[in-house]
Amino acid sequence: MNFRLILKVLGKLLICEALLMLPSLLVSLYYGGRDTRAFLLSMLITALAGIPLTFLKINRKTIYARDGFAIVALGWILMSFFASLPFVLSGVTPNFIDGFFEAVSGLTTTGSSILTFVEGQPKGVLFWRSFTHWVGGMGVILLTLAILPSLGAGGIQLMKAESPGPNPGKIVPQLKQTAKILYTIYLVITVIEIILLKLAGLSLFDAFIHSFGTVGTGGFSSMNASVGAYNNPAVEIIITVFTFICGVNFSLYYLMLKGDFKALSKDSEFRFYSGVVLVSIALITFNLYGRVFNSLGESLRHSSFQVVTIISTTGFSSTNFDQWGMFSKIILFMLMFIGGCAGSTAGAMKNIRILLLLKIMKRQLLKIIHPNAVYTVRLGNKAVDEKILTGVQGFFFMYILVFIIAVLIISLENLDWATTISSVAATLGNVGPGFGIVGPMGNYSSLSSLSKFVLSFCMIIGRLEILPVLLLATPSFWKKVNI
Amino acid sequence: MNFRLILKVLGKLLICEALLMLPSLLVSLYYGGRDTRAFLLSMLITALAGIPLTFLKINRKTIYARDGFAIVALGWILMSFFASLPFVLSGVTPNFIDGFFEAVSGLTTTGSSILTFVEGQPKGVLFWRSFTHWVGGMGVILLTLAILPSLGAGGIQLMKAESPGPNPGKIVPQLKQTAKILYTIYLVITVIEIILLKLAGLSLFDAFIHSFGTVGTGGFSSMNASVGAYNNPAVEIIITVFTFICGVNFSLYYLMLKGDFKALSKDSEFRFYSGVVLVSIALITFNLYGRVFNSLGESLRHSSFQVVTIISTTGFSSTNFDQWGMFSKIILFMLMFIGGCAGSTAGAMKNIRILLLLKIMKRQLLKIIHPNAVYTVRLGNKAVDEKILTGVQGFFFMYILVFIIAVLIISLENLDWATTISSVAATLGNVGPGFGIVGPMGNYSSLSSLSKFVLSFCMIIGRLEILPVLLLATPSFWKKVNI
Repeated sequence: MNFRLILKVLGKLLICEALLMLPSLLVSLYYGGRDTRAFLLSMLITALAGIPLTFLKINRKTIYARDGFAIVALGWILMSFFASLPFVLSGVTPNFIDGFFEAVSGLTTTGSSILTFVEGQPKGVLFWRSFTHWVGGMGVILLTLAILPSLGAGGIQLMKAESPGPNPGKIVPQLKQTAKILYTIYLVITVIEIILLKLAGLSLFDAFIHSFGTVGTGGFSSMNASVGAYNNPAVEIIITVFTFICGVNFSLYYLMLKGDFKALSKDSEFRFYSGVVLVSIALITFNLYGRVFNSLGESLRHSSFQVVTIISTTGFSSTNFDQWGMFSKIILFMLMFIGGCAGSTAGAMKNIRILLLLKIMKRQLLKIIHPNAVYTVRLGNKAVDEKILTGVQGFFFMYILVFIIAVLIISLENLDWATTISSVAATLGNVGPGFGIVGPMGNYSSLSSLSKFVLSFCMIIGRLEILPVLLLATPSFWKKVNI
Repeated sequence: MNFRLILKVLGKLLICEALLMLPSLLVSLYYGGRDTRAFLLSMLITALAGIPLTFLKINRKTIYARDGFAIVALGWILMSFFASLPFVLSGVTPNFIDGFFEAVSGLTTTGSSILTFVEGQPKGVLFWRSFTHWVGGMGVILLTLAILPSLGAGGIQLMKAESPGPNPGKIVPQLKQTAKILYTIYLVITVIEIILLKLAGLSLFDAFIHSFGTVGTGGFSSMNASVGAYNNPAVEIIITVFTFICGVNFSLYYLMLKGDFKALSKDSEFRFYSGVVLVSIALITFNLYGRVFNSLGESLRHSSFQVVTIISTTGFSSTNFDQWGMFSKIILFMLMFIGGCAGSTAGAMKNIRILLLLKIMKRQLLKIIHPNAVYTVRLGNKAVDEKILTGVQGFFFMYILVFIIAVLIISLENLDWATTISSVAATLGNVGPGFGIVGPMGNYSSLSSLSKFVLSFCMIIGRLEILPVLLLATPSFWKKVNI
């Protein structure tokens, strides 16, 4: 391991984070909130923690996949730690673990909250909370589409599993340029949504908050009742469309910008994702109509909103979907595991993995029928490498295993089935709300510190697609080897 | 497909089934029950359905893996259909679907029941119900250890996935001799348990019923309150020990008979299975002590009984475990997915698959750390073939996929989370009782016909380890090909 290099990069990340607190400080000053001092202090502490690390002398500049994984996993944990300072120092959260939970939930673009009364909190802190979604979402896109591929293919199973689509590393050969393009697309989408939400009737502050929540597929709202508080169909439609957009691989947008307008329709994962969304909306609308809502329009409105906001792992709510029929709830619960597309800001397993798993299954059945035939799993016209397939199958098991272990720890709380199971699914998939106590009208505040800690780690594990965090827990990961 | 051969074998199976109804007829006559006529009629109908098929002329004697799968899947469905006749004709079940559910539950050694008042039913029917467990258990052992390997390795993914242990096909080269040995071991274990249960204080009838339920790892009882009705620790200990024994690969017992006394301790799967049992018992005892039971002994007694009866997918209950803490319930729920060892009468995923999945995961992590090293997954001293590993990974996904689809259909009932999820887990894993409405003190009677039908299929799909039933649903499985 190149410890010096890792620490230096972490130091730079912390300085970035201190600077990223500036907009929230300005918001706090503008509204004359009681959180100004907290932001000044947080920026100071974060910067002071980061600066000394940047003076470390680097002996060798070579960086291996292992180092990359360590930077990513430790970076997310460390940044969450410092991101919690504004919550803790302003007194918004009563203790450190609550602040940490909220910060992790923000940076991992999860949107699970421990705040029981959102409207009553200072504006600066609310801005920071949603801004971390935006920063985290950007971080994930840069990570999966720019940084990881640039580390080289060696051992980056994570990226390998996702690259069968258009190979993002090849978009633009230089890392900085790739990052710049992605950054611009991300920014443009955000700005357009802010304008549209403002036009639809939200205050500028609320338009910012909900755009951050949408584009980062996070889901923190400035309202206790989330988007449902506005009861404004225009707002819901805008958010539905933008969450859907942000659940798509961002490199497809780049290809479209370059003139390949068929990039979307040609992409197998996008087609699968759209299919899952449409079928889910149809089934839930059918289940709601006449039972929960009397009009078909109302059923369609809320089912579209919830399906898209949950499959994109955003987690806004337009109504209390925990009171829907079990059929609708099970569909939403399943979507929490599927998530958006690879290379988007969405979390969970990703559509491409589910698609590949289904194709592998089909092949397994065909092989029994025709034992001597050779079958290749294809995406579009391209054959998918067997190593990728094995990686995807392994990922599926790891995801379920982490889910089960976390459920087991949460079950020590002795709560109901809905809360026990969905709290883990919603955090591991970076969705936000679940069912039961942690449902759309509830929050995570009543859970024990142990549960909050475990769920925070679920968010990080899910966000980083499991492997980097599991690696940190593998002893031989830290051993010195000559390779 | 060799349709004539398939039909002929199915005809022979039906004649066997008619003969297998004879003991129940005798029991009915002995107790002078109101079910005698039902058994006479059922035997007649079943035999008449089977006899014509046996006269079919066979054009070619060659049998491919596909034909084997078709025989197995169709055989189980057809036998369940005729096994339901005694229930329906005696009036014990109010309609056909209830009778079919009970018959499938018996033959697949599941033990999920729709009977609301077991004690009030005629003895002949109760005997038949439990006897189907015994027949089904035997069928599974013969299938996985004798018949499938004899079909040859070509395409039998099912067997391939299970053969990394001692290769059962090689126990004795001749199919008939293998079957005879397994049959004898099975019979001896049953007789010993009947004697022990009688000595412990059960009536001879109850000793038979519970031995059938144990050895077939089925779980039908002659009591509404299951084994808990006796409140007899000796009975519980006997059943605990025997269910544990019957969750083990039967070919290990053969090896021990031949003098290899270390066969058990050498077997990786057996060690893993024992480990899971011991850890689960310890955790649940810890969770029960002081909360549900005041004495440590009582906690240990019930936790051992429930852990073993559920991991072996038997499903007897000594107490209402649905009222235990969530931690204990989640552990039991997880055990419903793990199940016993391959080559036993137990259902669910089997320990060897979980063990291999964990080993695959370890390898995946090590490969990232040392990208150039070569790692082989081993069981004991033997390297496991990559095709087996892919098969096991594929099986895991299929199992979860079938689980999810079934849960989705059951959720149309709009019941609670516990019932919706556990009813599928308990039937797919051939366990029996779940939680909530279908918990140890409840039953499946209040579910809709659609749900009963779906859960019946879950039992068959789970019992046959998914592939054969999925194949029947694959169009190209039925197409004529020249291979």
